[in-house]
Amino acid sequence: MNVTQMIRQMAISAKASTKCVANSPIDRRDAVLKSIREAISQEQRSVLRENQIDLSNAREKGLDAALIDRLELTPTRLEALLEGLSQVIKLPDPIGHVEELRTMPTGIQVGRMPVPLGVIGIIYESRPNVTIEAASLCIKAGNAVILRGGSEAINSNTRLGQLIESGLRKIGLPKGVVQVVPTVDREAVRSLLTTPEYVDLIIPRGGKSLIERVISESQVPVLKHLDGICHVYLDADADPFKGHRIIVNAKTQRYGTCNTMETLLVAEDVSRQLPRITSALQDLGVEVRGCAKAMEAAREIKIPATEGDWRTEYLGPILAVRIVKGLDEAIAHISKYGSGHTDCIVTENSASASKFLREVDSSSVMHNVSTRFADGYEYGLGAEIGISTDKLHARGPVGLEGLTSRKYVVIGDGHIRK
Amino acid sequence: MNVTQMIRQMAISAKASTKCVANSPIDRRDAVLKSIREAISQEQRSVLRENQIDLSNAREKGLDAALIDRLELTPTRLEALLEGLSQVIKLPDPIGHVEELRTMPTGIQVGRMPVPLGVIGIIYESRPNVTIEAASLCIKAGNAVILRGGSEAINSNTRLGQLIESGLRKIGLPKGVVQVVPTVDREAVRSLLTTPEYVDLIIPRGGKSLIERVISESQVPVLKHLDGICHVYLDADADPFKGHRIIVNAKTQRYGTCNTMETLLVAEDVSRQLPRITSALQDLGVEVRGCAKAMEAAREIKIPATEGDWRTEYLGPILAVRIVKGLDEAIAHISKYGSGHTDCIVTENSASASKFLREVDSSSVMHNVSTRFADGYEYGLGAEIGISTDKLHARGPVGLEGLTSRKYVVIGDGHIRK
Repeated sequence: MNVTQMIRQMAISAKASTKCVANSPIDRRDAVLKSIREAISQEQRSVLRENQIDLSNAREKGLDAALIDRLELTPTRLEALLEGLSQVIKLPDPIGHVEELRTMPTGIQVGRMPVPLGVIGIIYESRPNVTIEAASLCIKAGNAVILRGGSEAINSNTRLGQLIESGLRKIGLPKGVVQVVPTVDREAVRSLLTTPEYVDLIIPRGGKSLIERVISESQVPVLKHLDGICHVYLDADADPFKGHRIIVNAKTQRYGTCNTMETLLVAEDVSRQLPRITSALQDLGVEVRGCAKAMEAAREIKIPATEGDWRTEYLGPILAVRIVKGLDEAIAHISKYGSGHTDCIVTENSASASKFLREVDSSSVMHNVSTRFADGYEYGLGAEIGISTDKLHARGPVGLEGLTSRKYVVIGDGHIRK
Repeated sequence: MNVTQMIRQMAISAKASTKCVANSPIDRRDAVLKSIREAISQEQRSVLRENQIDLSNAREKGLDAALIDRLELTPTRLEALLEGLSQVIKLPDPIGHVEELRTMPTGIQVGRMPVPLGVIGIIYESRPNVTIEAASLCIKAGNAVILRGGSEAINSNTRLGQLIESGLRKIGLPKGVVQVVPTVDREAVRSLLTTPEYVDLIIPRGGKSLIERVISESQVPVLKHLDGICHVYLDADADPFKGHRIIVNAKTQRYGTCNTMETLLVAEDVSRQLPRITSALQDLGVEVRGCAKAMEAAREIKIPATEGDWRTEYLGPILAVRIVKGLDEAIAHISKYGSGHTDCIVTENSASASKFLREVDSSSVMHNVSTRFADGYEYGLGAEIGISTDKLHARGPVGLEGLTSRKYVVIGDGHIRK
């Protein structure tokens, strides 16, 4: 059996198992999660052992330190993974209840019921945690899932896949519910992306090149997350203290995350605040690049920002700064250069805030809040499978709701249409 | 300029106009709709004249009577179109308000705001009414739209497009907001489907071959509606009177619609009710085809149903009937042969009803209601742009909500992430 045939078999097996998991009551789905949690907890040592093999292979291949850090599982990280599973178990059942039931003038009652999507394919890179996080969310929402992790994590993922399988077996659910692709052959990804008959949704998680490849090859709908070129706009009516706090936090609280600020826009009326902001950022090790006006307003800025800077997601300690005339120019800049992820206005003027919140077309729009809050947990979703910069289906941080569809439920008592 | 270049120009012009329409307050968007209504009302005669040209061309080409009927505009149909516009004007603003605002433990407030999708392409067949219906819903939801109607309706659609343009001009919105493709060249469809940089969503409305072509060629997300192979299942615990009423209505109230019942499933315990149901349907001119057991239970059924019948959307006065053991076999039949559109159980047993509503994976699941109710107006959506048999984004009858996306709105007071 070649790779294409193998992936097709896995997809068929996943599809065949969807009814079983979708129709399992919540107690049974949670029992599977508990059983997986127990298996991982008991088998920690074997998971860490397989992870060590991945790590030494990665070091041998000379993979970079950041990747090796993401690849590594430690007892503390496994503990966090188990805690994450406990959190998912505690979440309410996302499917099967009737919402928004209303009686129409004809007398029929019309409501909506969230139901599972079916088969979900997750394509991700080095973090083996994703294997458990994604599997648990898919099971909770009544879906089957095919997991394709990075080649560098194959031993860790295969072991975690075995523990998931033992969890499913113990509760009597078919192993087709969660399957880990057991090969590093890249052809497997292409095969998964071209089985729209069996796979309902693809969620890629990883770097830009992975996601671009998935988008261009997929015949299955993709819930994608491209760049996070996030902006903070310091309005003329901003409170300087709040502005300073938010800007420093949005840039420096973590550098490698998609909701980190990459460009700061400053209204020219308050450009006098720029030197202090720049110094604070530079003290924290941030390289600040500015437009000509910004360099004039803050002598601390020594590096000019070029056109390319407005389009760059640094994912590191660099910030681009631009002075704008005011709100309209800030919105126009974000519209031209932004990535539709997360953008924030700092202002005490409620009319300006309303205009910004309404007109900026991003998955999260914020007022007087650090962009770092754009996150499923911070939004109360209880979990996050990714952040969507798409407009269809799910937008912004995606929790269990994004893994479901809503059908209409109509109840009558012999009603006929006239 | 060739067709591809022309469509690309139209798409660029549509994209450029999105901010203008999206940021127009509801009064302005409604004013455009009123202005279009007025233009059509005043120019009825010219619309009917252009429609006559289409009709005589269609007759000359020998197009079939059903198509010519759909193509025809009459004063009565124009009146209904104007009334439809009035209804859309009365609907509440579907965009720009904050929903579900909640305060999180960190103190930030998180809510969601429906916003327009952007540029929508509608590809449809002979009914020129769609030009106005689709344009009005897209404008109401703050979108720009490109309309590509059937070649047989080109003169009617071009005239309606001119009236829409005059309506936009009067209120000062750019003509890029609504554009009617001015050519019958089929290459125009392909071009529209391959401009994902400018078009956010494609909605095809028409027969199966049109929709299949759109799905296979489109690089833009498609909100599709494939077959409506709808089932009514007469359960062992059905009220015979309600069952009879619902079955006759679901089959005969209108034959050509996607929510018409095509297959009747009868629990073997109540197969004695089949002769009366069959006679009633036959009296109304319906050809009834049955499985072997159905033909045994009802001598009135003279035509055997074959495997192909379970997979056929007749869109006409034909019904396939199958006797099943009970609920599980009914659900299995629907899962195997259904199209995920609309399916109904007739029963007085609430446990059976719950199981059916939960386990049948269709866009509308019904209990004791005629399938003919699966409709945006009947569901209180106020309008309908189509019925989606997809699971992502919008499912079932699609009204204004399906033409919007929801972004997160986050409000704080200088909150930073710890």
